[in-house]
Amino acid sequence: MPESKIQQAPHKILAIPGPIEVTNEVLDAISQPPMSHVSPGFVKIFRECMDMTRQVLYTTTGMPFIIAGSGTLGWDEVSSNLVEPGEAALVVNTGYFGDGFSDCLRAYGASVDHVRAPLGDVVPSIEIEKALKKRKYKIIVVTHVDTSTGVLSDVKAVAKIARKVSPEILVIVDGVCSVASEEIRMDDWDIDVVLTASQKGLGTPPGLSILVASARAIKVFENRKVPVTSYYASWQKWLPIMRAYDSGSPAYFATPPVNMVYAYHASLKQITVGLEERFRAHQRASERIKAVAKQLGYTQIPKRPSIAANGMTAIYVPDGFAPKEIIPRLTEHGIVVAGGLHKEVKDKYIRIGHMGTSVVDERRGDVETIEKALKASVRK
Amino acid sequence: MPESKIQQAPHKILAIPGPIEVTNEVLDAISQPPMSHVSPGFVKIFRECMDMTRQVLYTTTGMPFIIAGSGTLGWDEVSSNLVEPGEAALVVNTGYFGDGFSDCLRAYGASVDHVRAPLGDVVPSIEIEKALKKRKYKIIVVTHVDTSTGVLSDVKAVAKIARKVSPEILVIVDGVCSVASEEIRMDDWDIDVVLTASQKGLGTPPGLSILVASARAIKVFENRKVPVTSYYASWQKWLPIMRAYDSGSPAYFATPPVNMVYAYHASLKQITVGLEERFRAHQRASERIKAVAKQLGYTQIPKRPSIAANGMTAIYVPDGFAPKEIIPRLTEHGIVVAGGLHKEVKDKYIRIGHMGTSVVDERRGDVETIEKALKASVRK
Repeated sequence: MPESKIQQAPHKILAIPGPIEVTNEVLDAISQPPMSHVSPGFVKIFRECMDMTRQVLYTTTGMPFIIAGSGTLGWDEVSSNLVEPGEAALVVNTGYFGDGFSDCLRAYGASVDHVRAPLGDVVPSIEIEKALKKRKYKIIVVTHVDTSTGVLSDVKAVAKIARKVSPEILVIVDGVCSVASEEIRMDDWDIDVVLTASQKGLGTPPGLSILVASARAIKVFENRKVPVTSYYASWQKWLPIMRAYDSGSPAYFATPPVNMVYAYHASLKQITVGLEERFRAHQRASERIKAVAKQLGYTQIPKRPSIAANGMTAIYVPDGFAPKEIIPRLTEHGIVVAGGLHKEVKDKYIRIGHMGTSVVDERRGDVETIEKALKASVRK
Repeated sequence: MPESKIQQAPHKILAIPGPIEVTNEVLDAISQPPMSHVSPGFVKIFRECMDMTRQVLYTTTGMPFIIAGSGTLGWDEVSSNLVEPGEAALVVNTGYFGDGFSDCLRAYGASVDHVRAPLGDVVPSIEIEKALKKRKYKIIVVTHVDTSTGVLSDVKAVAKIARKVSPEILVIVDGVCSVASEEIRMDDWDIDVVLTASQKGLGTPPGLSILVASARAIKVFENRKVPVTSYYASWQKWLPIMRAYDSGSPAYFATPPVNMVYAYHASLKQITVGLEERFRAHQRASERIKAVAKQLGYTQIPKRPSIAANGMTAIYVPDGFAPKEIIPRLTEHGIVVAGGLHKEVKDKYIRIGHMGTSVVDERRGDVETIEKALKASVRK
């Protein structure tokens, strides 16, 4: 790799819940000339990405699938590889992304039931347990952080209940807005699939679908009775490829996005230096931003601090203000934030992302900039 | 955009049939800090990518779909949106990629027939006509350049026969290894879908699936009877998004790969400056490389010069040599080439890519380097 280090041009801080700010090292990596996807150099980088992805999720036995796509592609992987047409899925639904995952499951023929949380809340364990006892489910799906509301579900608890009631169930965590910003201990918590994307806690531009499957999930896949009902998302195609790269050999199904993989590698190298400190940095930044917002009259969508995400903040704007005036003011003061996404309250709230280098590298001063912009946003 | 221009570190020329060498401008674009996928700045870039994609294919009415993925994802789009389970597809099969597309069609429930060319040849028009008269097909699929053999099909002629026999048929061109290195006039030739990827003639790193659908194809899609059988590849999801960006507004289904889109935009700006001259540059380079190879005792896989691709060369190594000794010699002399892929002759030939900036920017001297390396490869 050449020694030239990219210096980013001055720009407003990207403080939406993904894509996020990335480091100079990540941009330096993404701008390397493409190399052959079957070269020893690329195989090494890809293999290290697989290993570091495992580290981030505290798993030694999980099988990573790293594919050109968005987080959504992970839904297709689960729906077409792990559920056979007619089989039942239980969705622990905390909002927009629970609805989306359900649509995807149904598109591939699953029979989907929901246990729904009210807006801003999580589903009580007792309701999940009740639902699990009523019907035999192949999988249970939970969104770790619903990016539409900033609600954080207790996936460890969900996995525990599910495993207790239904030992063979596959526990699927949609970690698109949580991986590397919230702790996930895949092996200890006995989770079967964590799926995510590159552009949030993982600090890489968007363009990679990243999924890790447990040995149990792979076994269920290998024992399925009917052929996989997708092609680009099919593990029949990808599993031999991932196994080959994992053992140090190249293999070909579809051309991997080599520059995106360089970028992901560079980011993972920075992330895996200190995971626990990284989670703490997210918690500290989140507490600071949420406290300032509260002082200013903003109200959290999540109903209690214990169910609020650490990588983002979803807040109703103060009385007398509207997102459509607040958002441009925030931009004027240096930060780009996102509008509402949950259909019930779309025009009443804003979403601020605070993940990755923005909260880990204090020299950047991004958290201070977010705080200052919030203060300016409600100044008369 | 900042003025800093990336200078690529010295490296061996990537002369495989994709990914290929890219320009400094493309790497400069890909290394910009990510921006919000719903910002006006990004909407403008995405919209221009759609327009320039149309230009490359000489269509004014086609609808582009630009999605994070590989070329293979285009197969899923066709198979799950345009063919309903049980409907018939005719595959004009010239090798590895015809087999792959068929697998994909079958995964989504299509009934697939083939007309097969012998290795190194195309399917005679008369056989295609005969097949079309025997059964009513929803779509006919043809691989423009089969990357496994370098065979170039006459897609204009295939479209003409298909339309004559079966006016309502959808003509699908797999242009992964041909778009921007071979002429394709989508409107004039009455082609319904061209699908491709970013990393070949389009001169961008891999990671984008690019597909353009005719108004006829969109209408067939909109009139389908059963729901689309995929999710990430579903036009039910993507068509409203693409229409929104096309009219200058953002919309959200899955996060677009913003840095990849910057890179694609930078490459399209360079490509659309002079398309016809670009095709001629590919032809000139191809003739030169093929002539040198012939002098040295290499033999083309394509049986006649008229059916050989202009963006790549697939050649049997001379008697007394093996790819496994030739390939490292070529690397030693500065070029990275690919091994065989077609199962019948996998260990007897090599593949050289000569697309994009390597053949368009003569100052690089890449064609000369390829010629010199080929000469050195058979020196005793």
